[in-house]
Amino acid sequence: MEKKTLLTHCTDAPGLISKITNICYKHQLNIIHNSEYVDNTSGHFFMRTELEGYFNDETLLADLDNALPQGAKRKLISSTRKRVVILVTKESHCLGDILMKNFDGSLNVDIAAVIGNYDVLQGLTEKFDIPYHCVSHEGLNRQEHEQKMLEVINQYDPDFVVLAKYMRVLTPAFVEQYHHKIINIHHSFLPAFIGARPYQQAYERGVKIIGATAHFVTNDLDEGPIIKQDVIPIDHTFSAKDMAQAGRDVEKSVLSKALSKVVNDHVFVYGNKTVIL
Amino acid sequence: MEKKTLLTHCTDAPGLISKITNICYKHQLNIIHNSEYVDNTSGHFFMRTELEGYFNDETLLADLDNALPQGAKRKLISSTRKRVVILVTKESHCLGDILMKNFDGSLNVDIAAVIGNYDVLQGLTEKFDIPYHCVSHEGLNRQEHEQKMLEVINQYDPDFVVLAKYMRVLTPAFVEQYHHKIINIHHSFLPAFIGARPYQQAYERGVKIIGATAHFVTNDLDEGPIIKQDVIPIDHTFSAKDMAQAGRDVEKSVLSKALSKVVNDHVFVYGNKTVIL
Amino acid sequence: MEKKTLLTHCTDAPGLISKITNICYKHQLNIIHNSEYVDNTSGHFFMRTELEGYFNDETLLADLDNALPQGAKRKLISSTRKRVVILVTKESHCLGDILMKNFDGSLNVDIAAVIGNYDVLQGLTEKFDIPYHCVSHEGLNRQEHEQKMLEVINQYDPDFVVLAKYMRVLTPAFVEQYHHKIINIHHSFLPAFIGARPYQQAYERGVKIIGATAHFVTNDLDEGPIIKQDVIPIDHTFSAKDMAQAGRDVEKSVLSKALSKVVNDHVFVYGNKTVIL
Amino acid sequence: MEKKTLLTHCTDAPGLISKITNICYKHQLNIIHNSEYVDNTSGHFFMRTELEGYFNDETLLADLDNALPQGAKRKLISSTRKRVVILVTKESHCLGDILMKNFDGSLNVDIAAVIGNYDVLQGLTEKFDIPYHCVSHEGLNRQEHEQKMLEVINQYDPDFVVLAKYMRVLTPAFVEQYHHKIINIHHSFLPAFIGARPYQQAYERGVKIIGATAHFVTNDLDEGPIIKQDVIPIDHTFSAKDMAQAGRDVEKSVLSKALSKVVNDHVFVYGNKTVIL
Repeated sequence: MEKKTLLTHCTDAPGLISKITNICYKHQLNIIHNSEYVDNTSGHFFMRTELEGYFNDETLLADLDNALPQGAKRKLISSTRKRVVILVTKESHCLGDILMKNFDGSLNVDIAAVIGNYDVLQGLTEKFDIPYHCVSHEGLNRQEHEQKMLEVINQYDPDFVVLAKYMRVLTPAFVEQYHHKIINIHHSFLPAFIGARPYQQAYERGVKIIGATAHFVTNDLDEGPIIKQDVIPIDHTFSAKDMAQAGRDVEKSVLSKALSKVVNDHVFVYGNKTVIL
Repeated sequence: MEKKTLLTHCTDAPGLISKITNICYKHQLNIIHNSEYVDNTSGHFFMRTELEGYFNDETLLADLDNALPQGAKRKLISSTRKRVVILVTKESHCLGDILMKNFDGSLNVDIAAVIGNYDVLQGLTEKFDIPYHCVSHEGLNRQEHEQKMLEVINQYDPDFVVLAKYMRVLTPAFVEQYHHKIINIHHSFLPAFIGARPYQQAYERGVKIIGATAHFVTNDLDEGPIIKQDVIPIDHTFSAKDMAQAGRDVEKSVLSKALSKVVNDHVFVYGNKTVIL
Repeated sequence: MEKKTLLTHCTDAPGLISKITNICYKHQLNIIHNSEYVDNTSGHFFMRTELEGYFNDETLLADLDNALPQGAKRKLISSTRKRVVILVTKESHCLGDILMKNFDGSLNVDIAAVIGNYDVLQGLTEKFDIPYHCVSHEGLNRQEHEQKMLEVINQYDPDFVVLAKYMRVLTPAFVEQYHHKIINIHHSFLPAFIGARPYQQAYERGVKIIGATAHFVTNDLDEGPIIKQDVIPIDHTFSAKDMAQAGRDVEKSVLSKALSKVVNDHVFVYGNKTVIL
Repeated sequence: MEKKTLLTHCTDAPGLISKITNICYKHQLNIIHNSEYVDNTSGHFFMRTELEGYFNDETLLADLDNALPQGAKRKLISSTRKRVVILVTKESHCLGDILMKNFDGSLNVDIAAVIGNYDVLQGLTEKFDIPYHCVSHEGLNRQEHEQKMLEVINQYDPDFVVLAKYMRVLTPAFVEQYHHKIINIHHSFLPAFIGARPYQQAYERGVKIIGATAHFVTNDLDEGPIIKQDVIPIDHTFSAKDMAQAGRDVEKSVLSKALSKVVNDHVFVYGNKTVIL
């Protein structure tokens, strides 16, 4: 017996749940968990079905294609652990959190490698017996540096690239190679404080709450589909530096929750939004 | 076109989602929203299906009965507003919250009457043009008082009875008449501080968080199926009285959220627990 | 015996706490609660002292003036209830929340009047025996309308003006008359979604959290000193309308918490920020 | 210039703040932060004062003793890092969190050693170059085992002993040696679910929220002064095992927040409660 997850999305039409679950039933697949959502504004249907049984992928997908409307997207994903590459700069809190959660089994990924533009986090990474590559940007223009980064990343063929406080902006060429596969943590409650130094901006505005946003990276900086956001209350006693310190807890928590949703196949990207089932 | 909600629960079996959604499809009913859950410990299946279309209740239920396992429970509920009777004593915050939320349309019930064992809340109730009955317990034993309460309640034939800080314990005879239809708000995070004066108990224990619990009333005091709980942080500066004051916000919020789930047909009671879909 | 609150703020200097508390001690005033804060960036000192005893305001303030640095601000506030005027348009949730909290004693203000540019909320206001004035903007330009509003407001000589979903922008002339005395609730987590239709903006951006911000009104729209913010999680199932509905709970909660802080003399405005002691 | 924290508590009396701050002023010590609290029920005064300057501890304390009421307790604590020993059994999440937070500088302690009754967490501990001692309880009675534990603990002369999911009950003899210096994390929202298997108890009760409690250990199991509590929402889909998994995040967060308060001298123990300034 195997477990797989079926993700379906298409234009809404009558009887879709019935058709899809019928096909699963005929294939003698047991539905462990099912969730669906219809976006009434766009008339689009989304369904996530956790299945258990003996799979004949080819005939199952063919049956689905026959039954579903023109243009439907469906994907049958096996439950093996996703392979991720993590990009970092100097700050350890997000990387450390992912490493520790993976160590104690609460995050279920295969961390293929960590790549940094400094060597600051090499020691931390290697404590967990994970390869670390330092790809310095010194003396390189953005394109040259990214080229070298991509060479290292690509050799691991990752399912997802995680920017765990990687403090450099990516070019469209890079983003394109990993379309909707790059997850970033932004240190503000987007769209508040887009751009640089969000905690300094937050301090100057005198906000009473700060937050963090995990999102897929697209070509528009800080504008990609949001996966997860969370906040913590602050008050007038917080300097910009205190906010940054307090914000680290939210940043790492939001990033690892988003990553968990993504690698466990809960996240659809549709337009510039996510549907999380 | 009408809207109705189908609640089904039964022993789990292969193909249940498929069978139920097929029947809806054949009846040309559109599924607006569907959620299901299987309790793996007990092997029990729960499904809530919001439907839209032209209903033939009799044949739909007959078709379901044919398809579902022996002993299955199914209920087709029309989307009319539920009728509730609210029981109170002297404190206004929970009653006030329900009255105001109903006034501004964020809670969708038909408040048939408010009944108190004092007349303190008569003025507040009548501001909203709702009948108030004062049924004093003075000079009556518990049974006699409940008998008089039930006479007033029963004349309104309520779908649910809401105890909005009604500070008297109900007898089994009362509870039996409204089995799983009486919703109480308990002013603690159950099962902490069961029984009387929970805030005084919380003060003495020095807790850092207080809460409230909305539950269905059963014969075991404070032991019925929990619908909703929430908490707020407190600290050493809170006296028992301060806690009671702060707790009011949680109490009213928890009670009206629980009530909203119940009257919108989201809540299954199974054993001594709730499944909320 | 009386209770008063002393608010002091000035350039930081050594011994300020000692000097102020000494003076209170010499005046045989008991300190019930004291809190202080130094903003290290600006080198500014803030202190809030709740006092109990027999007050000789004149000599107390004179003693303080002698002891405090040049330019110090100090204010001795008696503990009588603050008088507020509430401005509304059509939505009832914030007004209703304030009325009900005031009714049950959890918000401690004297609501002198409610003024709306429509008559929609007249019935609700009058349930609580509070005068309602409808000052329609129909056929008037902004200045003419504000003039009429001010005439009504001024006759109540309010300590604070509360914009409880008053959906019109105020002119600088209006704001100037009630400098740091006008409290507004903005239906977003500022500075995200400044301006009109924040829930529609939030929907389009696909955020996973929405919020509300209570702030003092200044001439810069949505840019005044923030008093209180809070948020609630949402997900992909929320339309812009659902967000608006869900947001109401946060809006009213944030507004009444901010108002409570303000009328109980906890809030200093310094620069474009608040210090809340 | 040095930084020290002065903790004072005594029977309440007029002028205490004034007297204490006067003495600091005369010693030319700058007050960086001051907070005080009077427990009106017991008439007890607590004050925490962060000071900066050149300290003459002896004369400062003598001056305070002269000024304060009979029986006053005062302690002047230098700002060096506290030394802690961590006790563990098999679960890594709390230990891992403390190790990582200490690594990235967000928790400011000196972890002298980790001691376990199994060797499961030796590898994790040694990644961070911290000594690990396995003191097995196999073949020993409780007293014999504790004796061996104490021998190892005592050689590090710790300021605090942290039970990071150490799953054995301590004897009064052990507790006495580290009176109000042992911090435990209990995996429930105390006093709910005292004793063994709290998540199983929570599952059976059908609660909608689970929590964790950090407290000082006293001779009464799970009854010591509470330092910090927090909760997370759960629903009907959580098995006891799922709750345990979800609860780990709260447990580690609560334990490290409590530890941070304790080692930064914010916590007074008074009766069976904590006052946190």
